[in-house]
Amino acid sequence: MAGYEISKDDLLSRLRRIEGQVRGIAPMVEQDRYCIDVLTQISAATKGLQSVAVGMFDDHLRHCVADAVEKGGPEADHKLTEATAAVKRLLKT
Amino acid sequence: MAGYEISKDDLLSRLRRIEGQVRGIAPMVEQDRYCIDVLTQISAATKGLQSVAVGMFDDHLRHCVADAVEKGGPEADHKLTEATAAVKRLLKT
Amino acid sequence: MAGYEISKDDLLSRLRRIEGQVRGIAPMVEQDRYCIDVLTQISAATKGLQSVAVGMFDDHLRHCVADAVEKGGPEADHKLTEATAAVKRLLKT
Amino acid sequence: MAGYEISKDDLLSRLRRIEGQVRGIAPMVEQDRYCIDVLTQISAATKGLQSVAVGMFDDHLRHCVADAVEKGGPEADHKLTEATAAVKRLLKT
Repeated sequence: MAGYEISKDDLLSRLRRIEGQVRGIAPMVEQDRYCIDVLTQISAATKGLQSVAVGMFDDHLRHCVADAVEKGGPEADHKLTEATAAVKRLLKT
Repeated sequence: MAGYEISKDDLLSRLRRIEGQVRGIAPMVEQDRYCIDVLTQISAATKGLQSVAVGMFDDHLRHCVADAVEKGGPEADHKLTEATAAVKRLLKT
Repeated sequence: MAGYEISKDDLLSRLRRIEGQVRGIAPMVEQDRYCIDVLTQISAATKGLQSVAVGMFDDHLRHCVADAVEKGGPEADHKLTEATAAVKRLLKT
Repeated sequence: MAGYEISKDDLLSRLRRIEGQVRGIAPMVEQDRYCIDVLTQISAATKGLQSVAVGMFDDHLRHCVADAVEKGGPEADHKLTEATAAVKRLLKT
């Protein structure tokens, strides 16, 4: 079985944790907390988001892209182009 | 004058926008919105966080690190090591 | 038609340019060239490598992964897991 | 003592290893080696370049930037802006 399949519940619980991390950044700035601590929090949130993105990408490949490929035709081509474009955007950030 | 100096207000208003983007991800997942749209939202939030990190890093160099360097001694050394370590963490994410 | 399909010739010519950029870094260090110029050269080479990676990933999805998905079974699953793992490695760097 | 100071010899030997990795990519493409293996090689080279960049950035902060900050004035300001811009470019790639 695949190593990446991620359940919706797992995804949502990870997103809640990341939301908390991101929500925690503004108060750190308001309270003039040490910059390096703020940067560490930002790195943690970014890492969390990238990890969620990998899980979602895996799911997308396995379902939407694989279904389109099985049917073939221009939709398959479109889905493949779109998947690569998503990877490109993730790498650019 | 420097190109990067970022005001606390600007930082906080950017953080509020990013919080909104991150808070918007979970409902997209719950409503089974198209994966690629969720990935685009994640890329936008990550980009926003990286941009805030660059602004904060600039501020940190200009104030904490520069002050420590002017005083010299082990604290300057510590602050320089810490700044590089923060860059390393940002690059790893 | 797809936006990403990249020919082997295009790939090889890009790789030659990147090789040249990377080969140019050591002499810059040996001649004590300005650090920021070396860092700019490193950023350019890294950007080139990421761009080649996106082109290769697109090609891989379109051929190896799509073929495996059409055949189905455990090989399709393996190829999908492997593709996501490659994206994860690219994001980590 | 600082954790990052990197000697010129260490830097050059790392660069030689990365040059070898990058030079190895084109023959892999020419011989139609498995895409995932090529992507792994690209990830390794990119990781190596990022690591060299962190070492050089540390050195740059400790010498050029710190010297300019000690002298003060517009040159200090310029060097700080330039250092942040270099971090921004590294993060974009």
